[in-house]
Amino acid sequence: MDFEQLKQQKTEEINAFLKEFLPEESGKEKVLCEAMNYSVEVGGKRLRPMILLEAYKMFGGKDSAAQPFAAALEMIHTYSLVHDDLPAMDNDMYRRGQLTTHAKYGEAMGVLAGDGLLNYAFEVMSDAVCEQGANAAKAMQIIAKKAGVRGMIAGQTVDLEWTGKPQNKELLDYINERKTAALLCAALMAGAALAGADEGELTLLETVGVYVGLAFQIKDDILDVIGDESKLGKPLHSDEKNEKSTYVTLVGIEEAERLVKEYSKRAVEVFELCLHENPFLKELLLSLVTREY
Amino acid sequence: MDFEQLKQQKTEEINAFLKEFLPEESGKEKVLCEAMNYSVEVGGKRLRPMILLEAYKMFGGKDSAAQPFAAALEMIHTYSLVHDDLPAMDNDMYRRGQLTTHAKYGEAMGVLAGDGLLNYAFEVMSDAVCEQGANAAKAMQIIAKKAGVRGMIAGQTVDLEWTGKPQNKELLDYINERKTAALLCAALMAGAALAGADEGELTLLETVGVYVGLAFQIKDDILDVIGDESKLGKPLHSDEKNEKSTYVTLVGIEEAERLVKEYSKRAVEVFELCLHENPFLKELLLSLVTREY
Repeated sequence: MDFEQLKQQKTEEINAFLKEFLPEESGKEKVLCEAMNYSVEVGGKRLRPMILLEAYKMFGGKDSAAQPFAAALEMIHTYSLVHDDLPAMDNDMYRRGQLTTHAKYGEAMGVLAGDGLLNYAFEVMSDAVCEQGANAAKAMQIIAKKAGVRGMIAGQTVDLEWTGKPQNKELLDYINERKTAALLCAALMAGAALAGADEGELTLLETVGVYVGLAFQIKDDILDVIGDESKLGKPLHSDEKNEKSTYVTLVGIEEAERLVKEYSKRAVEVFELCLHENPFLKELLLSLVTREY
Repeated sequence: MDFEQLKQQKTEEINAFLKEFLPEESGKEKVLCEAMNYSVEVGGKRLRPMILLEAYKMFGGKDSAAQPFAAALEMIHTYSLVHDDLPAMDNDMYRRGQLTTHAKYGEAMGVLAGDGLLNYAFEVMSDAVCEQGANAAKAMQIIAKKAGVRGMIAGQTVDLEWTGKPQNKELLDYINERKTAALLCAALMAGAALAGADEGELTLLETVGVYVGLAFQIKDDILDVIGDESKLGKPLHSDEKNEKSTYVTLVGIEEAERLVKEYSKRAVEVFELCLHENPFLKELLLSLVTREY
C-alpha cells in the first residue's frame, strides 16, 4: 500500500472511532449535540489525531489508549474553527464547501457548540485519565497547555488584534507558532507521553512540531497566492481580502519558499534525533509542507 | 465570629488565592489575560469555590490541595457568564453594576476570554492532577461532566431555545438542574472526592446540590418579582422583560415560596445523612435559599 492509500485507510479508522467519542444526539439537549457533531463531521483531514496516534505507536504504544486523546484533540481543533467562524471573529459562512456551524444553527448555537466541544474534549480526557493514570494525565496537561492561553488561544487573540495592521516576522512567527504549530506539537507530544516518552523526547517532538507548523503555515500563505483553486477547494487571496500580513507579503514568494524548505529540513533533522522510528509519521509530516493543496 | 463575618473572611481568603491561579498579564497575549482576569475579578460571591473547599474539609481534607479546583470552578462559572452576556446570547452590557467583558473589550474578546477561562480551568486542574493523582482526577471528571454537554451547557442551550415559548414545570426543572444546580453539585462532589469520599457519599451530595440548586433558582425567580432592587443590586422584572417562564409565572408566588421551603428541607435532610459534619457549610447552603438579595 502506498502512502496515500495508507493515509486514507487511517483517516477512515479515525472517523470510525471518532464517532464513538462524540455525544449521542438525544435528550432535550439534542440540538446542541447535533451542532457539535455536525461541526466535527463536516470534514477535515484528521491530521492532528493521526499524528497523535502515530507518535503513540512510534514510542511503543500498541493499544487503543490514545484514541480518546486523538478524539479530544480533534474536538479542540474543531471548536477553535467554530468560534473563529463566528460573526464577531472571521465571519465565515462556509468552510470546506459546507455551511459553518453558526450559519447552519444560528449564532448562539455557534458559541454553545464551540463551548460544548471544548468542554467535551476534557470530559473525554478526564474519563481516560481516571482509567489510565499518570501518562494520560501528562498527555491531557500537554493538550490543555498547547490549546490554552499561552498557546492556541493566544495565537488567535494576537492574530485578530493585528489584522489590518503592519506586522513583522517576529509577530508572524509568534502567531504561527501558537495558532498553527501548537496543536501539532500537542499531537506529537501527547501521543508520545501516553506511550511513556521522557521529557527530553517530548522536547525534541515539540521542536519538530514548531518547525512543521511554521513551514505548514508559510506553505498555506504561499498557496493562498499561487495555489490551484480547484485543488484547494477554497478561493485564493483570502489573506489579501482579510488584510492579513503573511510571509509572502513580508518577504516575497521566493524567500517564503526557501523558508518552507529550511524549516522542513530542520524538522526532519530533529525528528531523526529521536531514538524511535515511524517512517509513516515522517512522511506524513513532510507531506504537510510539500502539499499543493 | 458570626456566620456573616466568617463568610466574609472566607471570601477574602478565596479572592487571595484565586489571584494566584489566574494568568499573569504579560506577553503579546496580555490583553487576553486582562480580559479573563477582569471577568473573574469584577465580583461574585465566590459561592462555588467556598462550597468546594468546605466539602473538602467536611470529608477530612486539611491542606491546600482543593484550591486549584476551587479556582477552576470559579473560572468555569465566570466563562459561562461571559458567553451568556454576548450579543448573540442575552446581550447584557452590565453585570453587578460593571461593564460585561464584551462591552469592555469588544465582542471577539468576549468569545476568546470565555474560551480562555474554560481552557485555563482545565490547565490548572491538569497540573493538579499530574501532582496529586487519582482523587484529583476524579474531582476534575466531576467538574467536567457537570459543566458539560449533559450539564451546564445543556441547561444554557435549552433555556435559550425555549425563551419566549410556553414552558412547563418539567422543562423548568430540567433547565434549573443544569443551569443552576449542576455547578453547585460539582462544588460539593469535587470537594468531597478530593478528600476521598466514596460513590455513595458523592451521590448524597449530588442530591443535596440538586435540591439546593432548585430552591436557589426558584428563590431567584421570586426575588425578581417581589425583591428589593436596592438590595439585589439589579433591576427587577428581568424575567418578564426577557419573556422567560419561571416558577412564579407557572405556579404563582405562594406555591413557589412553598417549593423553596420544601426543597430546602429535603436538602438538609439528605445533607444530614452524610456521616460527616460541617455546620458552616450547612448554614451556607441554607443561606442561599433564605436570602432576601
